[in-house]
Amino acid sequence: MTITPADSAAVQSALAEIREALGADAVFTERADLDEYRDPFWVLGDSTNDVAAAVFPSTVEQIQTVVRIANTHGAPLWTVSQGRNYGYGGSSPRVPGSILLNLSKLNRVLEINTELGYAVVEPGVRWFDLVDALEEAGGGWWSSIPDLGWGSVIGNSLEYGRGHTSIGSHAENVVGMEVVLPNGELMRTGMGAMTDNRAFHTYPFGFGPMVDGLFFQSNMGIVTQIGWKLMKRPEKYASCWIHFDGDEIVVPVIDAMRDLMLDETINNYPFLGRGVAANKEGQPDLDAASEAWALRFALYGYEDIVEAKWKIVERVIGSIPGVTVGRTVYDGTDREGPQEGIHDDKVQAGIPGMELLDLYKVPFGPDTGHLDFSPVAPLIGTEVLKVIRLVRGLYEEFGEPYAAGCMLLPNSIIVVSVMFFDPKDEEKTRQIYANYDSMLTRVSAEGYGLYRSHIFKMDAVAQTFDFNDHAYLRFVETIKDAVDPKGILQPGKQGIWPKAMRG
Amino acid sequence: MTITPADSAAVQSALAEIREALGADAVFTERADLDEYRDPFWVLGDSTNDVAAAVFPSTVEQIQTVVRIANTHGAPLWTVSQGRNYGYGGSSPRVPGSILLNLSKLNRVLEINTELGYAVVEPGVRWFDLVDALEEAGGGWWSSIPDLGWGSVIGNSLEYGRGHTSIGSHAENVVGMEVVLPNGELMRTGMGAMTDNRAFHTYPFGFGPMVDGLFFQSNMGIVTQIGWKLMKRPEKYASCWIHFDGDEIVVPVIDAMRDLMLDETINNYPFLGRGVAANKEGQPDLDAASEAWALRFALYGYEDIVEAKWKIVERVIGSIPGVTVGRTVYDGTDREGPQEGIHDDKVQAGIPGMELLDLYKVPFGPDTGHLDFSPVAPLIGTEVLKVIRLVRGLYEEFGEPYAAGCMLLPNSIIVVSVMFFDPKDEEKTRQIYANYDSMLTRVSAEGYGLYRSHIFKMDAVAQTFDFNDHAYLRFVETIKDAVDPKGILQPGKQGIWPKAMRG
Repeated sequence: MTITPADSAAVQSALAEIREALGADAVFTERADLDEYRDPFWVLGDSTNDVAAAVFPSTVEQIQTVVRIANTHGAPLWTVSQGRNYGYGGSSPRVPGSILLNLSKLNRVLEINTELGYAVVEPGVRWFDLVDALEEAGGGWWSSIPDLGWGSVIGNSLEYGRGHTSIGSHAENVVGMEVVLPNGELMRTGMGAMTDNRAFHTYPFGFGPMVDGLFFQSNMGIVTQIGWKLMKRPEKYASCWIHFDGDEIVVPVIDAMRDLMLDETINNYPFLGRGVAANKEGQPDLDAASEAWALRFALYGYEDIVEAKWKIVERVIGSIPGVTVGRTVYDGTDREGPQEGIHDDKVQAGIPGMELLDLYKVPFGPDTGHLDFSPVAPLIGTEVLKVIRLVRGLYEEFGEPYAAGCMLLPNSIIVVSVMFFDPKDEEKTRQIYANYDSMLTRVSAEGYGLYRSHIFKMDAVAQTFDFNDHAYLRFVETIKDAVDPKGILQPGKQGIWPKAMRG
Repeated sequence: MTITPADSAAVQSALAEIREALGADAVFTERADLDEYRDPFWVLGDSTNDVAAAVFPSTVEQIQTVVRIANTHGAPLWTVSQGRNYGYGGSSPRVPGSILLNLSKLNRVLEINTELGYAVVEPGVRWFDLVDALEEAGGGWWSSIPDLGWGSVIGNSLEYGRGHTSIGSHAENVVGMEVVLPNGELMRTGMGAMTDNRAFHTYPFGFGPMVDGLFFQSNMGIVTQIGWKLMKRPEKYASCWIHFDGDEIVVPVIDAMRDLMLDETINNYPFLGRGVAANKEGQPDLDAASEAWALRFALYGYEDIVEAKWKIVERVIGSIPGVTVGRTVYDGTDREGPQEGIHDDKVQAGIPGMELLDLYKVPFGPDTGHLDFSPVAPLIGTEVLKVIRLVRGLYEEFGEPYAAGCMLLPNSIIVVSVMFFDPKDEEKTRQIYANYDSMLTRVSAEGYGLYRSHIFKMDAVAQTFDFNDHAYLRFVETIKDAVDPKGILQPGKQGIWPKAMRG
């Protein structure tokens, strides 16, 4: 699919009005300023996918103003919160020459409700900010966090991002949204659709259909506020691990983990890795030839419950031949607990950091690029091993090193894999992106869909969702055309194009 | 709001074609046949809200055919699964003279996955049917169920219906849908949007926005299949209760329950009642003057865990003055366990029954009608008591007996109340429906929205969701107009009217 860049005249007219309305210091158009919004993991120096400008609204009203101006001129907007969607495009737009709408200045933690266990945050709030605010509010509540702390809570959640505590399915933690619609109007969802409703961020439904889902991985609106579920700081936290050598043992381990998750013995989101997560010293280990597997998970709660759960885990997992299982127990009241500890222990306790970034710099130094490829499978041991081997086989076919990093849900799994390259090596970089297409074809032919995708691959991935001549995509396009008739909001995101831009 | 009945000529033309396509035995138009689709809880003998015909498709293809014919003629359809939505309108349509599309013949349990813990059901599958099928599949898995077993799993879930196990938030158990859209096309959601996707009913998201929410409490499509999450039969099940006298104790009990739910000690959905749920003999007790409160909840899991949890509950709840707490422990492997036991013990173990129906017949005999009024509040003791007193005060104002029946979520609560009347008493019946309007005004002015509503009250309730000039409703209407331009599917449901019928 060839993407037509945004109409430069329309964009410039819109920018003039935006500058007028928001002030000149909210609009950046200098090349040097815009460089940081390039996808750092694409061919170095390639300008074909640049934005025309970066706009920084400070308030919801300013976002509404920008959206209305964009409609007037038919200028496409590309929204990011912190733009840390690395491996999937960063801040880079689907349509070159779009106006980048950067929401990082809306960075207030609007509420922390220590009775009901939720926070209300704006899009610019990072994991670091939220966790700092929770600490200031008494430290009685944990957030779930992803591996790196620099991203936006809202940005990550809207992309179905994941964490590693018992509230690690981030999209499911969102209760009650405020959204600027593509026509510039402000809407609240769920119970919040009633002015001053008391249950806005506690009751997960409303009166009538739930529209919240429409704002995930999409281009239907700009989310300016969400309620975010928290987790009570537990009395005890056991950071647990399972080690084993040899692929075949993946099968009984996965089946046992599924049983332990479905019976709620384990209620966090475990992570299975080969090579990478295995390292007990917290140092990255990218040795793709390693047969050493490591699975980490956590137990939380009152001491008696954590002990009772641990005994069950030991009994069930310990009975699998070739497997060792262990744990480190932290006292929930000990604020220093895993603070300085290894990555696994920290992320399962909602403590954000940046240490994992080092892992991603190992292959080609500080500028190492990566492209993520992550099919979803049901959580059945034999099938998980089949998918791992399928994906690994494709890496081997292309002569690329493979490292597994699987995120377990109670009965499904995201088999994350990462292709590393040096963006300064143009040929190799283009080759990696080309390899992705073959991998997509092979994996989708087996009935596995992808969890997320790089902006360049969104159309290809969307095309794999082909039931009844792409009925889902056509339904979503119908909604897109109705709520954004001018097609100004993130055209092409997730393969959803407005009518005028559809092939 | 005055509702214009459906265009009779359009309906008759559509019916002629439907009869042709589905066979005469799938279409009922005789008055005697249609009587059972009247709302049994409206003025007895009143025909103003009757359907014109009842159509019984047997397959998804026949549903598609009916929808296409309805579009051709502009004939409104009103869909029900089992039509047991009593207290909210039963099978009765919002627009008089609609064609009732009764899905009860699509009653197959399509799959029970005993590894991954889900079932796939059609709309005609009742709780009784699903639980029978689970028993046949080995009995290793429980469903969650509502209080009465005769309703449809899909019908109840789509209305945000609730059960009482750890998977009692029924809308949240739906993973992957198949839907006939208002244009007659078949769509699958989530990972199912890919043909033969392996994770259709296990992974809760897809690629792109989640559209599933659009089909809850709405008129955007006809859900023909859902994946439904199951719960593993526990080793031990403790059915627990808390008894106390006097309203003031509601405050510390609610606060303690919230803490126990948010720290996951208790992970089912408890029920707080006054008078009604208190009776340990399982007999209904509608004595509105009673000050005796009862709260029930459950603990599930391995024996050690249930014991550890029980000790925490005893410590936390037992320390509240004036409160007694107790339990009955069942062995999960004992299939006879609570089978013949009292209602509370059964519903928390996913065993469907009809015994609660007797309770609803006490006030005026077998034909007793009821109208349900259920505001949602945050789960804070003082606030819950305030809402209970507000609602009870309104009942007292109208001289009606009040019984509380509150459904607890981890940090919110649905304060269910029920107005009883005799549908043979026209004046009183009309008065009850009029009282509802005043109650709605009073409760929404305090910031509480309703959980569900009777068809006659849908517009009034929708109007209370007024943030930014009803931005939510206008957004939903925009989607309705786009996906159902002829407005043939359940016009007016939840206050959502197609363009041609909006005031």
